[in-house]
Order: sequence, then C-alpha cells, then structure tokens
Amino acid sequence: MSQNDSYEEHRRSGIFFVITGPSGVGKTTIMDHTLGSDGRLAYSVSHTTRDKRPDEVEGEDYYFVDREVFERFRKEDKFLEWAEIYGDYYGTSRKEIDRIKSEGRDPFLDIDVQGAEQLRADPSVDAVFVFLAPPSLEELERRIVDRGAESPETMERRMEVAQKELSRIPEFDYLIVNKKLKRAVGDLRAVIRAERLKV
Amino acid sequence: MSQNDSYEEHRRSGIFFVITGPSGVGKTTIMDHTLGSDGRLAYSVSHTTRDKRPDEVEGEDYYFVDREVFERFRKEDKFLEWAEIYGDYYGTSRKEIDRIKSEGRDPFLDIDVQGAEQLRADPSVDAVFVFLAPPSLEELERRIVDRGAESPETMERRMEVAQKELSRIPEFDYLIVNKKLKRAVGDLRAVIRAERLKV
Repeated sequence: MSQNDSYEEHRRSGIFFVITGPSGVGKTTIMDHTLGSDGRLAYSVSHTTRDKRPDEVEGEDYYFVDREVFERFRKEDKFLEWAEIYGDYYGTSRKEIDRIKSEGRDPFLDIDVQGAEQLRADPSVDAVFVFLAPPSLEELERRIVDRGAESPETMERRMEVAQKELSRIPEFDYLIVNKKLKRAVGDLRAVIRAERLKV
Repeated sequence: MSQNDSYEEHRRSGIFFVITGPSGVGKTTIMDHTLGSDGRLAYSVSHTTRDKRPDEVEGEDYYFVDREVFERFRKEDKFLEWAEIYGDYYGTSRKEIDRIKSEGRDPFLDIDVQGAEQLRADPSVDAVFVFLAPPSLEELERRIVDRGAESPETMERRMEVAQKELSRIPEFDYLIVNKKLKRAVGDLRAVIRAERLKV
C-alpha cells in the first residue's frame, strides 16, 4: 500500500470532550444517548466522597473514596478539577483521562459549569467544550419542577445560578440548545464526528 | 420571552465553506448531495472565460464573461482568488460571497487545491476549509480511468499533481476521505452542522 493509503498521521486521537450546562438541562440524558451509540467515546468516571447509592456501581458511576484519600489526591495535584458541593468532594483525576486516551478512546466528561470553567482556564487541558443550554430559563424551571418538589427558595436560587451560567456561554466552543432531545443528540454527535475529522 | 429565549447573539451567520481536493476525487458529487439537503447552503458561482457548454446555465454553473471583463475585475481586485487553467480564467468574486452572506446563507465553494491555498493565505478570508482525499492514489487513478480515456502521460502528470496536493492536507481544517460516498457526505454534513453550533 502507498503512503497515502492511511491518513492517520493527520488525525488527532484521544479527543477530550467536556459537556456542561446548568443543572436540569438534560446533560445526563443526552450523554447516555450519545455514549450508547459510539464505541470510541468513554465516560470519564469522577471521584467523590459522597456515599454510594444502592443502584450505583464503584468504578462505573464514581470512584468512591473517603475524604482523607480525596484530600491527599488534591495535595498531590492528581485532579484536573475538583469542587465541593453540599459538603461532598467531586473531582476528575488526570489518571482517568490519560487511561482512556491510552486506550485510543475519547474521554467524555459531564460536569457542572464551574468545573468546566476550571478546565477551560487550565492551559494543560486540551479539550472540546460543549455548552448545553435550555431553550429558555422558563423551560429550565419547568423541567426542574417536573423532576420533583423543590422549595420556592431553592428554585429561585437555582434559577439565579442558571442565569449566571448562561452568561458564560461565550467561553465555550459549541452551543447546543436542548429543545428536542433527538435534535440535541444529533447536534452532539455532529460535533464529535466533526472534531474527529479535524486535521 | 426572556433574553435567554434566543441564542442568536452567540451564533455565527454566513459561514463560508470551501471544499477542495485533487481532481477526480468526487468533490462535485459530494457537493451535490450536500447542497440538495441543506437550504442554508448556497453554491458559490464562479466567473469563467471558457465557453459555455450546451447543458450549462449562466448564473447557475458559472458567470460567463469575456477576457476583457475578467481582466478588468482582476485589476479592480474583485476576485478573492483566480487562476488560469488550460488558457481559461476562473475566479471567485467577493461580491458573490457577500451576496450569499447577506441573504443569511452559507456560501459553499468547490475549488481546486491551488485556489483553496490562495484563499487560505488571504487573511481577509474567514472560511472553513475541507480537504477531500481519495482512499489512496491508486484508487484516485482508477476513478479517473473509469471516467474516460486519458493518455498515459496525462495520467502520470495528474498523479504527480495529486500527490503534491495531498501533501498540503495539514494546511486545511478538516480531512474527509472519500471511500464510501454515503459516509463522506455524512462527514461533510457533520462538519457543516458542527460549525453552525460553534460559539
């Protein structure tokens, strides 16, 4: 075969995809639909200090660790980003991303906007950032209400946070509006496919 | 409706897509499949001094002009790029691209590698460059032979040119390998869809 038979030399491998957006926008649903149909994508499993729920699997949903371990990892700079949410720690380990890349696969991370901004600001992180937005704040509110009871105070606070998060859209690479699930999944797949075609 | 109802402010409009690749690779076929299914794309019609063929339509296939007009346009810097091929002039007018953009559509230009490089080198041109490559030089040769008789000398020359053109791949944004038509069309559509989602 000639040297032109393969174009691998022009392709990137191990593309790190980061999907973010306000809480309640539908990140997990869209991610599940995307991961299921794409064998090259690999879900990046986060570390957490929160308790494991009965339906969760160690190493699949999270790596469950205690606070001492988490804090040691933090001090040893083992996390690309980390956050404390309602008293629990959550973090993305460098090792997890490197492991997926070493398998020739593309790490796929679902993360809140604050975490995505930490990654974005880190010059050592080379990633594609996708912001998932609701059609409107009103629609986001409706979806959160549909998921279960929230106190009016919590709701107001969540909407304030969401509004602030939407103002950060210009910092990210792609914007997908989650109006119709099917369309949003198609958008995300197009982004992933196109990024793999980049020279 | 709230300010978050529309994300238009974060979107680009009038994205200029340039598709290039060696002669015989299948640019026109893939372009036809893409244009037909995408109402926002608009084929950028080139100017030429060559004779109109019976099946060609003025303003659809080309703007047919005589050499004096073409040379005047050149001197007046009306072309984004131009070339002389086998004694005839071909050029892309700035006005054509601006006209399409002003309609809120995305100009789509099919051009040889030399022309694409001229555009790439022009800092005033903001475009997305897609390189369409054959699976191999051998396969390109086979496709050209299938299209009709070429003398061995012409063939050798065409293959030399194609090989040089393939070495320019790193200068472009996306690389699509035209192995299966359906897949290559899907790739191009993904690139277009993803570019429209960019912030």
